[in-house]
Amino acid sequence: MNSIVDNPQASNLKPQASTICALATAPGGAIGIIRVSGPQTFEILSHVFTKDLSQVAPNTIHYGYIVESDAIHHQAPIDEVLVSVFHAPHSYTGEDSVEISCHGSRYILNKVLELLVKNGCRMAKPGEYTMRAYLNGKMDLSQAEAVADLISSTNRATHQMAMSQLRGRISSELSQLRDQLLKLTSLIELELDFSDHEDLEFADRTELLQLTQHISQHIDKLTLSFKTGRAIKYGVPVAIVGKTNVGKSTLLNRLLKDERAIVSDIHGTTRDTIEDSIDINGVNFRFIDTAGIRQTTDTIEKIGIERTFQTIEKAQIVLWLIDETPSVTEIQEMADRCKNKRLIVVQNKIDKSENEKNINISSLDSLVIRISAKKGDGIDYLESAIYQAADIPELNENDVIVTNARHYEALCRAQESLTHVTEGLQLQLSGDLLAEDLRQVLEILAEITGGEITPNEVLGNIFKHFCVGK
Amino acid sequence: MNSIVDNPQASNLKPQASTICALATAPGGAIGIIRVSGPQTFEILSHVFTKDLSQVAPNTIHYGYIVESDAIHHQAPIDEVLVSVFHAPHSYTGEDSVEISCHGSRYILNKVLELLVKNGCRMAKPGEYTMRAYLNGKMDLSQAEAVADLISSTNRATHQMAMSQLRGRISSELSQLRDQLLKLTSLIELELDFSDHEDLEFADRTELLQLTQHISQHIDKLTLSFKTGRAIKYGVPVAIVGKTNVGKSTLLNRLLKDERAIVSDIHGTTRDTIEDSIDINGVNFRFIDTAGIRQTTDTIEKIGIERTFQTIEKAQIVLWLIDETPSVTEIQEMADRCKNKRLIVVQNKIDKSENEKNINISSLDSLVIRISAKKGDGIDYLESAIYQAADIPELNENDVIVTNARHYEALCRAQESLTHVTEGLQLQLSGDLLAEDLRQVLEILAEITGGEITPNEVLGNIFKHFCVGK
Repeated sequence: MNSIVDNPQASNLKPQASTICALATAPGGAIGIIRVSGPQTFEILSHVFTKDLSQVAPNTIHYGYIVESDAIHHQAPIDEVLVSVFHAPHSYTGEDSVEISCHGSRYILNKVLELLVKNGCRMAKPGEYTMRAYLNGKMDLSQAEAVADLISSTNRATHQMAMSQLRGRISSELSQLRDQLLKLTSLIELELDFSDHEDLEFADRTELLQLTQHISQHIDKLTLSFKTGRAIKYGVPVAIVGKTNVGKSTLLNRLLKDERAIVSDIHGTTRDTIEDSIDINGVNFRFIDTAGIRQTTDTIEKIGIERTFQTIEKAQIVLWLIDETPSVTEIQEMADRCKNKRLIVVQNKIDKSENEKNINISSLDSLVIRISAKKGDGIDYLESAIYQAADIPELNENDVIVTNARHYEALCRAQESLTHVTEGLQLQLSGDLLAEDLRQVLEILAEITGGEITPNEVLGNIFKHFCVGK
Repeated sequence: MNSIVDNPQASNLKPQASTICALATAPGGAIGIIRVSGPQTFEILSHVFTKDLSQVAPNTIHYGYIVESDAIHHQAPIDEVLVSVFHAPHSYTGEDSVEISCHGSRYILNKVLELLVKNGCRMAKPGEYTMRAYLNGKMDLSQAEAVADLISSTNRATHQMAMSQLRGRISSELSQLRDQLLKLTSLIELELDFSDHEDLEFADRTELLQLTQHISQHIDKLTLSFKTGRAIKYGVPVAIVGKTNVGKSTLLNRLLKDERAIVSDIHGTTRDTIEDSIDINGVNFRFIDTAGIRQTTDTIEKIGIERTFQTIEKAQIVLWLIDETPSVTEIQEMADRCKNKRLIVVQNKIDKSENEKNINISSLDSLVIRISAKKGDGIDYLESAIYQAADIPELNENDVIVTNARHYEALCRAQESLTHVTEGLQLQLSGDLLAEDLRQVLEILAEITGGEITPNEVLGNIFKHFCVGK
């Protein structure tokens, strides 16, 4: 069991034999960074870079030319570059590595990669740098996964969760669980080994059962956090429903427009528009089935009421837009459809004199939020209501939120195995059977951080979603 | 005049007061680089980076966190980064500067830029880093322009020309011209100052005229190279013409397909498709008006013969695709239309038995190249013929090719002023008038490398086409 616990990071694995290269930046900028990592890094660089790097200090930057040599040792300059030098094990991958800062021309970047490959590099697979970092014990698996999450983070909440995971919050939480499980295991083994020594006092089974339940609650807390984690990671689905001409399209555009105004800030870079989604307090809300809303009135009429109900099905939050008091039947219908949803009733067009009156729907357990989508009145208030409806706890740095489906799935399996321990204790099963179940719980939890040598297919599956160059 | 000659780089200009920041890579990669440059660089970094950089050695790399501090000095981590440190004057801009290597998340990159701006940076304008490099005497103007050309280079030839310009080939060519002009000036001034010393021998006017003509030829050589430079930089326009169903579309696809196959090589990055253009021996050939070719036969018929002639007008090389011997009228018409063009007659469909016979058009001064666009036969040969028709001299590293319209325009003006000198010499004008004209030639040539302080509006015009972050 010690191998699981004492060596959570697989630093005893063989170093990688090949030297890999890849473009680590997106093509098209002023500069492009090419990463090289592996045992042959400096040998390969000596063939393509004008400065000798064999004697330079680590973590230093060197100016020179990437050159292509022909048969008669004539050197054609490919680019004027800066090369950053890192020595194993003090690099991202834990291997010897360099980063070549080139001019961002696609021709140059391809040419430099071509030269590196000609001189012995292999093109890196997606996520291979981070996989090597894991294999060389620079980070555990959950931290490696956090790297991918960090790169794809688009708002405050996803960023904060990924950063917390990268800094080892999940790992340290699991380490606490491991300590508790080990304590339990040692108590049971003590009972086993010395059960014939009548003069020794052992923890009684009730005590062991309490400890087990405590661990189980801890795992429960983590699995429950996945609901929040998933909402933050993938966004909260919101439906806008309501009759024709009630202003659904205007409201959607108003919400999106406010968002656009916020993001078109100092930096001048256009952000990839995440179609029909907004961030409120750093959490992403996705408006679903907006195609219908964007179409002409006629088309919506044709698609009809069934479509609306399907949209509600897919949503977590429903914005019901009205401009007059709905009929009792309509209210009942909506209440039935939104049983497991958060329903927000929104009274639109309050700027028009005929709509000045507050609508109250006493039969619904929902506030009516008064807005003018056209003029923008009440939109801030509506946004807070949407955020509150998502029921996302205020996150702070110390919260551990499970965001990764692989982790969630492992935690569920660990909980299941722990149930066997609880049952075993209740059934007064012998200590060696209990220890076997506990070993299984420990092994499952170790999968998350990759403490044991993780099978290649599992690693492949984790890293294939990375971008090349990371 | 000394200020022009002795100080070709404007290193005596005031350093820039502001500290600028920008994303130097395209957004969307595994990593993103943010550049900071200016006198406050390390002061600003001290507020956002966890490691103290005030005492570290230049050209070194430092690991730490970019953090956001709130009012009570609580620090929220924004990213785990590497910071490369450069000290003035040994940096790209010649100023104190750092490059922050972040995870490539748009959220993170924007957040880091926001923090830098909050702490005293200003967002950089397009090309501002390179403009500062020029203003601080790190490179001359023609080299600064070469940086932009290098970044946008897409093939071997454009890359080679930009690289040669960046390495100062234009600058050193102009420096040679300057030396010759100075020699001429000093001879004339000598004549002026000592004309009453009868015991001194002066260069006679014939000698001066010869020297002037030599300089004029040198300038001519450079202005003439612009034809090649422009062709390489912007691509050579090629028209494919011929009757309906002769296989124009098949030929176009064949040429483009071969190209695609070449570029989909080892690196796996998809290149931005430059619509309907191919590289032959590293030179770009653009097929023009291909929309017509890609349309259905009927449409082409409707557009008619006039469209074909317009296409020929715009081309430098015309591929006339035939599958049977054209009539005498047709040949005459084509010959008339292609008077200033390079015409290549291409016999298609040689794979069909009925087309086995070689077509010879004795009245045209053009080879007939036999191909099968469908099967790919003869395409290599056709490509060499296209390349040869472009009449691009084999470039080697020492060739100076003018590629920049601004340089070309200045060279033309310099040539014009030099004509006044030639005429003055022939008309036996006095030395001081000649010296005045020569001074003007020198000033115009100095514009190219920006030796004199270049007016702000000219600089603005040059650098506005750069990308931000360079």
